[in-house]
Amino acid sequence: MINIPFNKPYLTGKELFYIEDAVKKGKISGNGYYTQLCQKYFESKYGFNKCLLTTSCTDALEMAAILIDIKEGDEVIMPSYTFVSTANAFVLRGAKIVFADSRLDHPGIDEDQLESLITSKTKAIVPVHYAGVACDMDKIMNLANQYGLYVIEDAAQAIDSFYTGKDGIKKALGSIGHLAAFSFHETKNIISGEGGMLAINDRKFAERAEIIWEKGTNRSAFFRGEVDKYGWVDIGSSFLPSEIIAAFLWAQLENLEDIQQVRIAHWENYHQKLQEWTSDNLIQLPVIPSYATNNGHMFYLICKNLKQRTTIIDNLKSEGILSVFHYISLHRSQFYKGKNFNTVLKQTDIFSDCLLRLPMYYELKVEDVIYKITEK
Amino acid sequence: MINIPFNKPYLTGKELFYIEDAVKKGKISGNGYYTQLCQKYFESKYGFNKCLLTTSCTDALEMAAILIDIKEGDEVIMPSYTFVSTANAFVLRGAKIVFADSRLDHPGIDEDQLESLITSKTKAIVPVHYAGVACDMDKIMNLANQYGLYVIEDAAQAIDSFYTGKDGIKKALGSIGHLAAFSFHETKNIISGEGGMLAINDRKFAERAEIIWEKGTNRSAFFRGEVDKYGWVDIGSSFLPSEIIAAFLWAQLENLEDIQQVRIAHWENYHQKLQEWTSDNLIQLPVIPSYATNNGHMFYLICKNLKQRTTIIDNLKSEGILSVFHYISLHRSQFYKGKNFNTVLKQTDIFSDCLLRLPMYYELKVEDVIYKITEK
Repeated sequence: MINIPFNKPYLTGKELFYIEDAVKKGKISGNGYYTQLCQKYFESKYGFNKCLLTTSCTDALEMAAILIDIKEGDEVIMPSYTFVSTANAFVLRGAKIVFADSRLDHPGIDEDQLESLITSKTKAIVPVHYAGVACDMDKIMNLANQYGLYVIEDAAQAIDSFYTGKDGIKKALGSIGHLAAFSFHETKNIISGEGGMLAINDRKFAERAEIIWEKGTNRSAFFRGEVDKYGWVDIGSSFLPSEIIAAFLWAQLENLEDIQQVRIAHWENYHQKLQEWTSDNLIQLPVIPSYATNNGHMFYLICKNLKQRTTIIDNLKSEGILSVFHYISLHRSQFYKGKNFNTVLKQTDIFSDCLLRLPMYYELKVEDVIYKITEK
Repeated sequence: MINIPFNKPYLTGKELFYIEDAVKKGKISGNGYYTQLCQKYFESKYGFNKCLLTTSCTDALEMAAILIDIKEGDEVIMPSYTFVSTANAFVLRGAKIVFADSRLDHPGIDEDQLESLITSKTKAIVPVHYAGVACDMDKIMNLANQYGLYVIEDAAQAIDSFYTGKDGIKKALGSIGHLAAFSFHETKNIISGEGGMLAINDRKFAERAEIIWEKGTNRSAFFRGEVDKYGWVDIGSSFLPSEIIAAFLWAQLENLEDIQQVRIAHWENYHQKLQEWTSDNLIQLPVIPSYATNNGHMFYLICKNLKQRTTIIDNLKSEGILSVFHYISLHRSQFYKGKNFNTVLKQTDIFSDCLLRLPMYYELKVEDVIYKITEK
């Protein structure tokens, strides 16, 4: 019997009210009032040049792959310790995925290893801001500029998190690469069940992004009066979510500050009160590099080995608490191995075996989890 | 000032209740309680072997294109008088689209023209059940069997509509081809804002469909206990909608009979009371072939020419009534013409110029529209 789940979706209060309002407005298909409200919110709050809501973060990554014109044989560099969609979005367009190892201190991509993976076929780097913690974007953007590569930030977990580069300017994650993808999946800080967003920072992509989003048609330009009829002009898909989803999301956004405050407090509580227990058990606490911020998305531990992790999961489960491991490294997947690539990624394997995520959600009584962990 | 819109989304009453319930159940991402409820409803009511809800009909078509393994250069035959997604879903996988003309009496594909378009590269035929009216599926399935082709029914508009073949058995549209795609876009009979469904009739596709739907992972098999961990096994995307969308859809499905009855009554009212006026003005009323049923999705007129249609649209608009034309034929699109294909499709051009759709929604006072049309 699980009393404390790993995740619990949080209703801020006005979700159903806004959904009803969307229906009353006579439009619940995509790109309506609430979609535009959410997009403008993100653009103005985080400095993204243009935002488009999508049905998932996966779809936002697929839009990015189409926008940078991925073709058969192009190579895309990304960490192996990530969700399958980071890779599949590019594989769908014909890319070969080149996996990089994780950092020593963090599951994020090892920035210093990237240059050795670049070939004449490399088209893009996809850094994943794991747990909402920034990759070292100065290093990545410099490399990309040097080799003429695109950078697509997988910011699925990184809403309301920031990076401060050598210029001292604090920038929102997702505002630095040419393109960035966010998730509003129910396990994220800000949710709409399934949902995502593409942030378009390089202005040259803005017009085509809108076309690809609207099923390959110039429908958006038509509704702005820029063309007198709309039709099929490009490839594309139905990437835009229902207004029902956007209305739900808007209620979440109105409470973003509160949600963030509560989650960060949970995180700090965990971090502070698990110091002694983790030290005694040779477990590592998460590290936030000085250039990054903590957005309270996830609290994880790095266990000393797989056996210890399994024991902790089992112990917590017997107390009604659900803690979970995370990715099975993509370079070890059936799909990738079937392609006969031989890739050895030591740090990735460690995080795959040893990383453990503790419950994290708005209504969590974090003290209850800490008590049950430390009393063992 | 528009008093009578072309479409108005209809809330049956329990949509918000079920959405709230989905949140209370602790799961609003995809493939939860309401998704499975909807899928089972469709499977048992219409005899589809397996159903998977999708974020749009476009996405269901994309799943079909992946399932039949469309590759660069494969040819897919479909009508030109259809929505852009019918084509783009296959173009995204590298297909060349071969457009067929419409029938004389109906915008549906001219079944007798199909055989002449089949080449050694043809992989599939995509009949579109325009306005929910069946294509002659016996002819299409016979050809497909003869040449070893797949048939993917574009049943976007065809929920709760049927076909009776030479064997005298009445079958639901979407249950006849190897695969079929439905839409729950706000303009359809049964809605969820944006939304769709893939019906899988050929059992050989069932297992892979689930994998492609779950981002290329065997997650569904994992949750059924068939494999002990899940991972990346195939290409795929996040095709599954939020439980918020599925909960909304479930409220609609509980009222399907009522919605269908009301819409069909509107349709019959239009059809009966516009007899004299259409005859006087050389306008054609829609024709339902004897093997097909009418699902009350759309009421359209075929005007004698473009000028007459424009006049009627303008007259109705001045009375506060919105009537609309439909597709700009895909073979005349900027995208297709850019490929230097020379295709002449006479009937398609006629429907593109002359077809006019009258307002159609649950709460419509159809008498008001009829009165304003016939008084002119």
